Amino acid sequence: MRIHGDLNSGNCLKVVYAARLLGRDDTFVPVDLMKGEARTPAFLAMNDMGQVPVLELEDGRCIAQSNAILRYLARGTALLPDEPFLQAKVDELLFWEQYSHEPYIAVCRFETVYLGKPASALDPDKVKRGNNALDFMERRLAGRRFFIGEDITIADIALLAYTRLAHEGGFDLAPRAALTGWIKRCEDRLGLAPSA
Amino acid sequence: MRIHGDLNSGNCLKVVYAARLLGRDDTFVPVDLMKGEARTPAFLAMNDMGQVPVLELEDGRCIAQSNAILRYLARGTALLPDEPFLQAKVDELLFWEQYSHEPYIAVCRFETVYLGKPASALDPDKVKRGNNALDFMERRLAGRRFFIGEDITIADIALLAYTRLAHEGGFDLAPRAALTGWIKRCEDRLGLAPSA
Repeated sequence: MRIHGDLNSGNCLKVVYAARLLGRDDTFVPVDLMKGEARTPAFLAMNDMGQVPVLELEDGRCIAQSNAILRYLARGTALLPDEPFLQAKVDELLFWEQYSHEPYIAVCRFETVYLGKPASALDPDKVKRGNNALDFMERRLAGRRFFIGEDITIADIALLAYTRLAHEGGFDLAPRAALTGWIKRCEDRLGLAPSA
Repeated sequence: MRIHGDLNSGNCLKVVYAARLLGRDDTFVPVDLMKGEARTPAFLAMNDMGQVPVLELEDGRCIAQSNAILRYLARGTALLPDEPFLQAKVDELLFWEQYSHEPYIAVCRFETVYLGKPASALDPDKVKRGNNALDFMERRLAGRRFFIGEDITIADIALLAYTRLAHEGGFDLAPRAALTGWIKRCEDRLGLAPSA
């Protein structure tokens, strides 16, 4: 299959991480967001939502939305439990990530790293909601190795991508010991160099 | 099972609609958001995200996030196709709804209906993004009865709840014929009185 994405986007990195853990050899096709390459007619023919990542299947059919792609790739593997309740608890975190985490953690980082805004100029409401999201993760992870069970699932992968870079958006991860321990465990599982 | 929710919230109505279509007789337990009832210690013990809806299973275990609940209730039924690609196309819309639709369509309605803001005082960026979301739905629905296949799925249910009330938030549905036709078909399937 082919993964169309931009490696500066955590949403795309999620898919790359999952493919790596699953030992897949999908081709990565770079899409430069800053050059508007997700808005060209050719791209919109693949994904009319105009967003990366896109998973292109062997037969040319496409799936959009990072967490929908994670679910598709992970079905029937250890990255997504089959048991309905556990699967629902994974879904709970996937939807929470898109609504209550990404719009604050990722957006603050985008504005500091890519728009060059100083952290002090970020929208205080976004910063507050981002800290609330990190506090929630810290509470959930207390005494746990991963979000669901004893090993990594797509719930961890979805949350890791932007959380491990949250400090670049002005968030302070250091006082959150459960969170930083979890980041380290995820990075070890994924073979990533420590982020901070 | 028990559905904890507030009937003023479209996210809660999604679950009520799905339960109705599935012929379930779950008990509805009212939670008054405006009175802060989703932030009490008893509620947070059910859902530490502090949000409605919550599905409480017979054994007391709980599932949060409207779209995770929809997926859980719909598994193995006609509301969620088993075929992996079609299921991924449902997921695509569920995640898109939470990231690119609800934060604009639902939030504008909340501000006009519950905070009494005139539509002219809404954040123009939110209004623009809300219109973009409705335009996307209009394009996707052209020539189709429902979003996935010939009958209603949880992708339709998730998108219907706030879309059918979008006019209350100042959005003009009338010029969008594919969208209003789809709303009517969903309302017929659900036995709802026409919304506009």
